[in-house]
Amino acid sequence: MKKSLGVKAYLYPMPALVIGTYNDDGTPNAMTMAWGGLCDFDKVALNLEESHLTSDNVAKRMAFTLAVPDCAHAAEADYVGTVSGHDVPDKVARCGLHAVKSENVDAPVFEEFPVTLECKVLELQHGIAGFRVIGQIVNTLADESVIGGDGEIDSDKTDGLIFETFQRTYRRTGEKLGGAWDIGRKFEK
Amino acid sequence: MKKSLGVKAYLYPMPALVIGTYNDDGTPNAMTMAWGGLCDFDKVALNLEESHLTSDNVAKRMAFTLAVPDCAHAAEADYVGTVSGHDVPDKVARCGLHAVKSENVDAPVFEEFPVTLECKVLELQHGIAGFRVIGQIVNTLADESVIGGDGEIDSDKTDGLIFETFQRTYRRTGEKLGGAWDIGRKFEK
Repeated sequence: MKKSLGVKAYLYPMPALVIGTYNDDGTPNAMTMAWGGLCDFDKVALNLEESHLTSDNVAKRMAFTLAVPDCAHAAEADYVGTVSGHDVPDKVARCGLHAVKSENVDAPVFEEFPVTLECKVLELQHGIAGFRVIGQIVNTLADESVIGGDGEIDSDKTDGLIFETFQRTYRRTGEKLGGAWDIGRKFEK
Repeated sequence: MKKSLGVKAYLYPMPALVIGTYNDDGTPNAMTMAWGGLCDFDKVALNLEESHLTSDNVAKRMAFTLAVPDCAHAAEADYVGTVSGHDVPDKVARCGLHAVKSENVDAPVFEEFPVTLECKVLELQHGIAGFRVIGQIVNTLADESVIGGDGEIDSDKTDGLIFETFQRTYRRTGEKLGGAWDIGRKFEK
């Protein structure tokens, strides 16, 4: 039996992706976003509001990084998503994140997060669902600590942070169930 | 030390959301999508390819459902994301999913999935990242089995399925870490 709950923004899982940009004065800025992700094999989409300092920064430098936090840095990811850079321009330093300049794009890379996409802006869109940024992935950075024996990222090592919108909590990643494009094959008869 | 991996579509977590539509003859269709999610408090975005049968169906009926699978139905979600409705128009029946007509939109609701958004199409966009559908959430359905004592969805009961792109596996949800807009407050001084 299904119950109607009305208009709810209830999807699962949601990411807590940290967007890295530079403010006008070169201070690194970070903002956590759940409304966005991949939109192609080599592109990401950010669904933002015009009022964010991150929106200004992305439009000016036409570049950003997009980091995947681990559970050890859930509080830092939460903090930079809660506080506006307009009010606290040094929020990155306040929560102890360390920024280095990306070698590939005009945006900061945060040392603490295990996986980071370096992106150039392809298009800025103003539409019915706010301000949307399409980014071209130009490189992917991964900590050596999350690289497996095959040279690729091992999801047993990333300790990926999950955001859930039902009760607005963060959750840890659980065990593997099986392979994608694989566990459904039993229905191919 | 960070290692460069090149252009990789590496974000985490990714959803495995099941889009429900009707084919021309009224057969229910299902397609699993990772590239999409919320883009506003009452809107969702689907990033599709023009070639999907789901893309045709959404444009014709201007409606769809978006379901959040649980781990018990990971194989069904995987199967309907692997096989095209062009080739297997009865893929919903083949994997044993049960569809009922939504009371609110011209699209099917699958009984097996615990949370479903019922959506009307607000806009169809053809852009540099493919075919994008903006949907207005008009109602949310939840199984009674996942509703907590407060009448809302309890993420301890949903057993949410997670898709990870690093090694292309599905993973189970782990334990709660703390509240969003809360665990970062320790940095507010």
